[in-house]
Amino acid sequence: MDIGALLTSAGINVAICVVLLSLYSILRKQPSNVSVYFMRRLISEQIKPDHFGIERLVPSASWIVRAWQATNEDILAAGGVDALVFLRIVVFSIRIFIIAAMICVFLVLPVNYYGQEMEHKKIHAESLEVFTIGNVKEGSKWFWTHCLALYVISSSACVLLYFEYKSITKMRLAHITGSPVNPSHFTVLVRGIPWSRDHSYSKTVENFFSTYYPASYVSHQMVYRASRVDKLMKDAEKMYRVLKSIESQRKDSYMPCCLCGGTTHSFKALNIEAESVKSKTSGDGLQPSQREKLEKERPAAFVFFRTRYDAVVAAQVLLSSNPMLWVTQLAPEPNDVYWSNLSIPYKQVWLRKIATLLGAIVFMFVFLLPVTFVQGLTQLDQLRQTFPFLRGLLKHKFMNQLVTGYLPSVILMLFMYAVPPTMMLFSTIEGVVSRSERKRSACIKVLYFTIWNVFFVNVLSGSIIRQLNVFSSVRDIPTQLAKAVPTQATFFTTYVLTSGWASLSCEVIQLFPFFCNWFKRFILRKQEEPCSSTALTFPHHTEIPRLLLFGLLGFTCSIMAPLILPFLLVYFFLAFLVYRNQILNVYVPKYESGGLFWPIVHNTTIFSLVLTQVIALGVFGIKRSPVASGFTIPLIFLTLLFNEYCRQRFSPVFKRSPAQVLKEKDRQDENLGRAEEIYKLLQTAYCQFPLLSPDLTISQGPSTSQELSMPGNSGQNKDHESSKDPESPNPGNQLVKLNEK
Amino acid sequence: MDIGALLTSAGINVAICVVLLSLYSILRKQPSNVSVYFMRRLISEQIKPDHFGIERLVPSASWIVRAWQATNEDILAAGGVDALVFLRIVVFSIRIFIIAAMICVFLVLPVNYYGQEMEHKKIHAESLEVFTIGNVKEGSKWFWTHCLALYVISSSACVLLYFEYKSITKMRLAHITGSPVNPSHFTVLVRGIPWSRDHSYSKTVENFFSTYYPASYVSHQMVYRASRVDKLMKDAEKMYRVLKSIESQRKDSYMPCCLCGGTTHSFKALNIEAESVKSKTSGDGLQPSQREKLEKERPAAFVFFRTRYDAVVAAQVLLSSNPMLWVTQLAPEPNDVYWSNLSIPYKQVWLRKIATLLGAIVFMFVFLLPVTFVQGLTQLDQLRQTFPFLRGLLKHKFMNQLVTGYLPSVILMLFMYAVPPTMMLFSTIEGVVSRSERKRSACIKVLYFTIWNVFFVNVLSGSIIRQLNVFSSVRDIPTQLAKAVPTQATFFTTYVLTSGWASLSCEVIQLFPFFCNWFKRFILRKQEEPCSSTALTFPHHTEIPRLLLFGLLGFTCSIMAPLILPFLLVYFFLAFLVYRNQILNVYVPKYESGGLFWPIVHNTTIFSLVLTQVIALGVFGIKRSPVASGFTIPLIFLTLLFNEYCRQRFSPVFKRSPAQVLKEKDRQDENLGRAEEIYKLLQTAYCQFPLLSPDLTISQGPSTSQELSMPGNSGQNKDHESSKDPESPNPGNQLVKLNEK
Repeated sequence: MDIGALLTSAGINVAICVVLLSLYSILRKQPSNVSVYFMRRLISEQIKPDHFGIERLVPSASWIVRAWQATNEDILAAGGVDALVFLRIVVFSIRIFIIAAMICVFLVLPVNYYGQEMEHKKIHAESLEVFTIGNVKEGSKWFWTHCLALYVISSSACVLLYFEYKSITKMRLAHITGSPVNPSHFTVLVRGIPWSRDHSYSKTVENFFSTYYPASYVSHQMVYRASRVDKLMKDAEKMYRVLKSIESQRKDSYMPCCLCGGTTHSFKALNIEAESVKSKTSGDGLQPSQREKLEKERPAAFVFFRTRYDAVVAAQVLLSSNPMLWVTQLAPEPNDVYWSNLSIPYKQVWLRKIATLLGAIVFMFVFLLPVTFVQGLTQLDQLRQTFPFLRGLLKHKFMNQLVTGYLPSVILMLFMYAVPPTMMLFSTIEGVVSRSERKRSACIKVLYFTIWNVFFVNVLSGSIIRQLNVFSSVRDIPTQLAKAVPTQATFFTTYVLTSGWASLSCEVIQLFPFFCNWFKRFILRKQEEPCSSTALTFPHHTEIPRLLLFGLLGFTCSIMAPLILPFLLVYFFLAFLVYRNQILNVYVPKYESGGLFWPIVHNTTIFSLVLTQVIALGVFGIKRSPVASGFTIPLIFLTLLFNEYCRQRFSPVFKRSPAQVLKEKDRQDENLGRAEEIYKLLQTAYCQFPLLSPDLTISQGPSTSQELSMPGNSGQNKDHESSKDPESPNPGNQLVKLNEK
Repeated sequence: MDIGALLTSAGINVAICVVLLSLYSILRKQPSNVSVYFMRRLISEQIKPDHFGIERLVPSASWIVRAWQATNEDILAAGGVDALVFLRIVVFSIRIFIIAAMICVFLVLPVNYYGQEMEHKKIHAESLEVFTIGNVKEGSKWFWTHCLALYVISSSACVLLYFEYKSITKMRLAHITGSPVNPSHFTVLVRGIPWSRDHSYSKTVENFFSTYYPASYVSHQMVYRASRVDKLMKDAEKMYRVLKSIESQRKDSYMPCCLCGGTTHSFKALNIEAESVKSKTSGDGLQPSQREKLEKERPAAFVFFRTRYDAVVAAQVLLSSNPMLWVTQLAPEPNDVYWSNLSIPYKQVWLRKIATLLGAIVFMFVFLLPVTFVQGLTQLDQLRQTFPFLRGLLKHKFMNQLVTGYLPSVILMLFMYAVPPTMMLFSTIEGVVSRSERKRSACIKVLYFTIWNVFFVNVLSGSIIRQLNVFSSVRDIPTQLAKAVPTQATFFTTYVLTSGWASLSCEVIQLFPFFCNWFKRFILRKQEEPCSSTALTFPHHTEIPRLLLFGLLGFTCSIMAPLILPFLLVYFFLAFLVYRNQILNVYVPKYESGGLFWPIVHNTTIFSLVLTQVIALGVFGIKRSPVASGFTIPLIFLTLLFNEYCRQRFSPVFKRSPAQVLKEKDRQDENLGRAEEIYKLLQTAYCQFPLLSPDLTISQGPSTSQELSMPGNSGQNKDHESSKDPESPNPGNQLVKLNEK
C-alpha cells in the first residue's frame, strides 16, 4: 500500500464523516427525532420543540460549539462520575498522543525515511513501509532516536496516568462524600442465607443480624422468586402501554409521561382493588398466599443498617465460619440491582464464573475464522488465487486500492458488532448482581476480545496462527511481534480511519435508534413517550474497549510507524466532541459505578506500554542495536514498578470504601438529625416488584421521589442494552416485606 | 541402574538409619544430652535426669512406642495447632500413598513388567527401567490400567484433601474460640501513621482512633527505633549471661533458669537505679530524654481495642482514603512480633517484596550449577570422559553402584542445606512483621526452590537446560516431561532413600545441636541453662517443603515407576514417628500461626496432582493411546475445579477471622466480667524493650505470666533459626508508652 491508497482511504472516510455529521446536524433539529437525539434532556430538562424554520434544513456546527463549551460540572450533572471518567480516557489519550506525535513525527519519522540509502520516489507513490522502522538499516547508529522517543512516551504516559489515577480517586471519594443520601450506602446485600427447617429465610436473617448487629441493624428485605403471576402482570402492563400510546397519539404532543398523571386513573383503581383483596386474605394466620410468599423467598436479602460505616463493616468482614454462607457485599444502587440474578444460589456463582470464562475463551477462538479471512484480503495475490473471478475487477487501480485499503476493516468492523451483546450475555449468565457490574464485566471481556482478535491475531496471523502454534514459542514472541507489527502498521492505520472515524459518525447519528423511531413514528403511526425506561444508558462496554484498542495501536505503532499518529489524534479529537455531545444530550445515567472503570483503563494502558517496549526490544534485537536494547530493558522494569506502585497507592480505594470518609459523612447526618428521614427512605428504596412500574407510578411528578435527590427510589428500571431480562417491573404484586426492628 | 544397585543403596541407607536410630536411643538417655533431646519437656515439665544404669547404654525402641502412643491432645498441648497440622501432612501422605501403592504395585507394576515381549533376566539383575511405563509397548491396550490408577489416585487424593481441609479449618476455628485470652486478638498493628508537624506519632494515633473509634479504642503502644544505648544494653546482657553460666557451672545441676530466681538480683538492682534516674529527668516538661524518645518513635503502633470483633473490624476495613496510610492488620502474638522490621516504613514494603522476589529467583537459577554437576554423576559415561583419572576406580562394580546410586543425591543434599537459611534471610529483608509469617514466607520460597531444583531441573536437564531453552517450548513441556520422568525415576528413588531416610535420622539425632552441646560441655566446660530463648522452634520452613517434595515425587512417579512407592511409604512411616517424637520432646512452640501452613500444602498437592496428570497425558500421547489421553483431560479439569471449590469454601477463613465466632467469644468474656482483666493484660503484653530479657525477668516462675495462660506475655523471645536478628531483647530501656483512655 502506498501513500496514495492511504489518502484514498482517508478521503473516503473524511467524506463519510462530513456527510454523516452534517446529516446529524440537520436531523437533530427535526422535532420527530427529539427522542433519539435529546433523550436525556427530554427527561431531565423538559425541552420544547422548535418551530419550523429554514435553519432546520441547513447543517450547522452549533452542537460542536456546545459540546466544546460544556464544563466538567455540566458533564458531572448530566452523566455522573462514570461519564467524567470516560472523558478522562479521551483527554489522556489526546495528551499522550500529542506528545508522541510531536516526538515521532519530527524525530523518528525522518530517521525512518532516510534510514537506508535508496532512491526515494515521488511522495504520493512512496510505499508506506518506507516510513516504518523496517526501513532503517541494520546496526544503524540512529536507533537512539527510537529509544529516546520510547523513553519520552513511556515516562510521560506514566506521569499522566499517575495524575489521572490521583484525580479520579479524588473524584470517587467526592462522589461518596458529596452525593446526597444514597440508600445503597446503608444497605448490604446478603447471599447464601442458610436454610433452616424451623424458620423462613426472612426470620433467619432477622435472628442473625439482631443477634450479631443489635445496635446497627435496622431492617431487611427478602428477594423473591418471580412467579407466573408476575409474568401475567408484566403482560398486562405491556397491554396498558399499547393502549396508552394510542391515547397519547391523539394528543400529539411531547409531554413526557412523568408529567401526565391523569391517564393512569383506571389502572390505579384496579390495582387498589387487588390490594384490598390481598389485605383481607392475609388477615388471619398463615393464609395460602402467605405460605406461597414464604416458598417464594430466595436465600438473599437486602439488610439495612443505621449508618454507612456499619454497612461497610458488615460488607467487608467475613461473617460466618463457612465462607459460602452469609456472604455480604455493599448493595448496588436501587436502579442498578439486577434482580433476576439475585435468586441464583451463591454456591453456583463460582461455577458460573468459570463456565462463562471458558465460554468467552471458546468464543474468542471461534472468532478467528472471520478474522483470518479478513487478513487474507489485504494480501492481494492470495485473494486473486482464491477467487479467480475477481481478477478482472482487481485490475482497476481504484478497486484495488478500495479492496486492500478499505474493505478488510469494514468486514472486521461488521463482525465486531456481534461481540458486545454476546459478552453481555456471558456476563448476565455469570451471575452478577448489578447492571453496572455486568457492564464492567462485559467491558473487560470485550476488551480482551478486541485486543486479542484485532491486534494479536492480525499481527501474528501471517505464519503462526495457521499452524495454531502460538503458544509453542513463548520466547520468540517478541521477535515475531517485532517482525509483524511494522508490516501490519498499514492495516492498523486504515483500521483507525474506518473503524475509528466511521464508528464515531455512527455513534453520533445513532443509526439504530433513529430507524426504530422512524419506523414506529411513520410506519406504525404510534408515538412512544420518552420515558426513562426506554432511554439508553452509556454503552461503556463497547466504547471503552474501542478507545483502549486505539490507544494500544497508537502506542505499539508510535515509534515503528509514526504515520498512524495524526490519524489517531483526529480520531481522539472527534471522540472528545462526539462523546461530550452524546453524554450531554442522549444517554441517561440510570446507575453509577463511581469511576470503577478506571482501573481497567489504567491496567490496559500499562499493558500497552509494556507491549510496546517488548516489541521495541525485539526490533532493536533484529536490527542489531545492542545499546538501544540495553536501554529498553530497564524501561520495562520501571514501567512495571510504576504499575505496582499505583496498584498499592490507588486501587484499594476502588475495591473498598474508606472508613474515615464514611464516618465523617455519618457524623454530618447525625448532626443534621436526618436519621429518621433516612430510615424512611430505606424502607422503600429497594423494590423488587413495584406496585406499578416506575414510569406508570411516578405520575405525580419527579418531585416526590427526588425529595432526597437519590437516584430513583422508585424501583427497577429496564435496561435496554440487553433484552434477555426475564424479570422486568411487574405491577400489582407488592411482595416487599419490611421487618421493622 | 539395576535392582541390585537399588538394593545396595537401600541397604546402605537402612544400615545408616538403624545405626543412627540406635545411637539416638542411647544418646537420649545420657543426662548430658537432656538439653538437646528433651528441651521442650525440660522447660514445660521440669523432668529430672535418670540415675546411671546399664540400660543407658543399650539401644531401645521405647521412644518409638511413646511417639506412637501420643494422642492428638498431647500433640496439641506440646506443639500447638501448627504441629498438629504438620502431622496431618504426614498422615495424609501415608493414606494416599497406601492407596497408590496398592493399586500401582498390584495392577500397574505387572503391566509395566510384562508390557513388552522380551526375555526377562533374573530379577536382581533386571534394569529398573523394565518396571517403568517406558517398558509398555506403543499402542498397547493395557494403558487403561494406568488411566484407572490415575483416576483412583486423583479422586482419593481430592477426597482426602477435602476432609483434611475441613478438619483443619475446624481446628483453626477451635484455636480461635478455644484458646484463652490472647492479647493479639485484641490488638491491631497500625503502620503508615502519617507524619504531622504539630504532634508526635503517638498523639496522631491517639487522635485518630479516639475520633473514629471512640467506643472501642482502649490504648496504644508505639514502636521505637533501637538506639546505640540499646545495643550497649544488649552487650551488657551477653556479658551477664557469660558470668551467670560460669556461676551455674559451679552448681552443676539442671535447674531451668525460669526457676532460679536468686541469681538475677545484682543486675536487677542496677536496673532499678537506672529507672529512678530516668523518672527524675522526665519529671519537668519536655526533658532531653523525652525529646529523644519522640525522635525515636516510628510510624507504627499497636492499638488495643475493647473487643476481638472491634479489632478485627479495624484490621479488615480500609481506614484512610490513602491506602498507604493507616494500614492495619491483626497484630501477631507478642512472642511472634519481629520488632526490627516494624520500624521499616510501610511505603518500602512493596519494594522490598519485589526486590526479594527477584533475589530469590536469581538465587534459584544460580543454584543450577551444582545441580547440573550432580546430574552429570548419574551418567557414568560422561563422568568417565570428564574425569579420566576416575576410570580405574569406576571399574569396580561396587564403586560404580555407589557413585551412580548414592553419591549424586548426597551431594545434592549437602547443597540443599544452604538453602533454608538463605531463604530465611530473604524473608527477613522482605519486611514481614512476625516470625511465623517470616517462616511461612521462607517455607514458600524453599518449596518453590526445592520443586524447581530437585524435580524440574533434574528431569529437564538432559537436553533443555543446557541450552537454557526451557521457556522456548511451552507446548512441548508435557512431552519432554513424559520422556524424562520415567527415566529419572531411578534417581528419584535413590533420592528418597538418601535424602529422605537419612534426613529423618539426622533430624532425630539433632547433629548440630548435639555437637554444639558437646563442645560447650566438654571442651569449653561451661554449662548453659536450658531456657526458652535458646530452645529451637519447629523448622516448618525446611520440613514442610521436604515432605511436599516427596509427595510430588510420589505422585509423579506413581503410575510411571511404581517401585518408588514402597520406599516412600517407609519414609512417611518413619517421618510420622520421628516428627511426633521431636514435637513431643525437642521443639518449643513459641508462637502459633493457627494452621496457616495448610493452604500451602493443599495448593502444592493439587499442583502435584495436575502435574502428574499432565505428564501422564504426555506419556499416553507418546505411547499412542488416544483413549487414555482422552480420559485424562477431564480429570485435569475436574481436579482444578475441585481446587477452586476448596479455595471458595475454606481459604477465606485462613485469611480473615469470622465475625460470628469472635462476637460469641466477646460475649462470653462479657458475661464472665473479664474486661478489666483483659485491659490489664493488654497493657503489658507487647514489650519492645523488656526491662530484662525474658529468661532473666521471668525468674518468679511461669505462674504469674500464665495466669491467663496466654502464650508468653513477657515480651520477645529470640528465635534461633536465624541469627541475623539485629534487635534482640534489650534490658533496661523501658520505653513502653500506654495512653490509657
